[in-house]
Amino acid sequence: MNVLIVYAHPEPTSFNAALANHSAEALRADGHEVVISDLYADDFNPVAGRHDFSTVADPDRFHYQSEQALAASKGSFSDEIRREQERVLAADLLVLQFPLWWGGPPAILKGWFERVLAYGFGYVDGARFDTGLFKGRRALLSVTTGGTTARFGPEGVYGEVDRVLWQTQRLTLQYMGYTVEEPFIAYGTPRIGDEGRKGYLDNLASRLLDIASKPVDRGIRPTDPLALVSENAWAKQG
Amino acid sequence: MNVLIVYAHPEPTSFNAALANHSAEALRADGHEVVISDLYADDFNPVAGRHDFSTVADPDRFHYQSEQALAASKGSFSDEIRREQERVLAADLLVLQFPLWWGGPPAILKGWFERVLAYGFGYVDGARFDTGLFKGRRALLSVTTGGTTARFGPEGVYGEVDRVLWQTQRLTLQYMGYTVEEPFIAYGTPRIGDEGRKGYLDNLASRLLDIASKPVDRGIRPTDPLALVSENAWAKQG
Repeated sequence: MNVLIVYAHPEPTSFNAALANHSAEALRADGHEVVISDLYADDFNPVAGRHDFSTVADPDRFHYQSEQALAASKGSFSDEIRREQERVLAADLLVLQFPLWWGGPPAILKGWFERVLAYGFGYVDGARFDTGLFKGRRALLSVTTGGTTARFGPEGVYGEVDRVLWQTQRLTLQYMGYTVEEPFIAYGTPRIGDEGRKGYLDNLASRLLDIASKPVDRGIRPTDPLALVSENAWAKQG
Repeated sequence: MNVLIVYAHPEPTSFNAALANHSAEALRADGHEVVISDLYADDFNPVAGRHDFSTVADPDRFHYQSEQALAASKGSFSDEIRREQERVLAADLLVLQFPLWWGGPPAILKGWFERVLAYGFGYVDGARFDTGLFKGRRALLSVTTGGTTARFGPEGVYGEVDRVLWQTQRLTLQYMGYTVEEPFIAYGTPRIGDEGRKGYLDNLASRLLDIASKPVDRGIRPTDPLALVSENAWAKQG
């Protein structure tokens, strides 16, 4: 299986880094291909803008989706975006490894969604959720949090995990068609000690090996997603 | 009332810009003070890092909260962060104006939360939710979305608005102690025409004037939030 781990933490000695690296080693030892996109190390720019493209659809008014649609049809995304898109395209399994900051992924990862998973690449009108372009593939969130399990329980102040991760799991990954695996969450990481951290490292590795043994189908995605959309449908659906 | 509008859209002629500007005009005409933080125009950097600080707590290992705590105690946040923190501190009402991208705020705004609402400024251990530092103040999300109302209904594919906005309303604003107003959402904005847009502009203005007439209390916030936290409590709670 081809696996892409998108990893978003500024500190190379962090527990997040350990989780990303340990996952990659375990998967490789099991015969899988693994690529890590290390967003902080790559100095990934999370801000959407004209620098995303070498083409211009409208020089007077910046409409992001229109510029993305043109770039998807012309192959005119910036090198940084194209590299990430090629990695996403090659991956049967997408793993997002990040610390929960203000209840969600760090901005550097949120901006990776916005810029890389562009209109015409990540989604098009009329191909979402059950008909999403990445149907047949799997995705997993692997998250660390300072909060305890109880805080994310039915009575917890943060709300249940499904609600906390809704934006990323439902409105990003499932929206694109991915089958989203039960999220892996390392709770209370500042206070669990080496033993606790080792337990999480091992559990994540075994979760990943299990997921990597499940069936996937990378062949569903159309080679030209924009061909699915008539001008008409786009104008109607916006 | 003092109002801060944090506005996150790359295009100055967008409907988001119109909403931000119309809101500011309506509030000013009613006698309120309004400041707009225009994140794209200001070229706000959403990536957390050592550039946030002129001090260093640990040169060998970057632990973001520890660096934020030190900067809060020394007054050593970067100029950009300090300016935004002063605006937040002065505001009775915080309005976040943004388009829903992948179900949430654009990365540039997510990074504003991470960098500006720092540990020691936006929150400290032992002062969250009902005891949050910004208790007594109000906040409103004003959001545009291409999706229709039905998609956000109980049976809608995107899920209900409360769930979609949970990360920002519950785990960011309420976490800090804000009273979060019912969100203002402009649905299906690419397809509502000038008439529809005018309706939303007027409705938002009248919502804001109504909110601005409600009681607030800026005086609750302690001048030194870090004094609330003993070293002990911090070590225990992480």
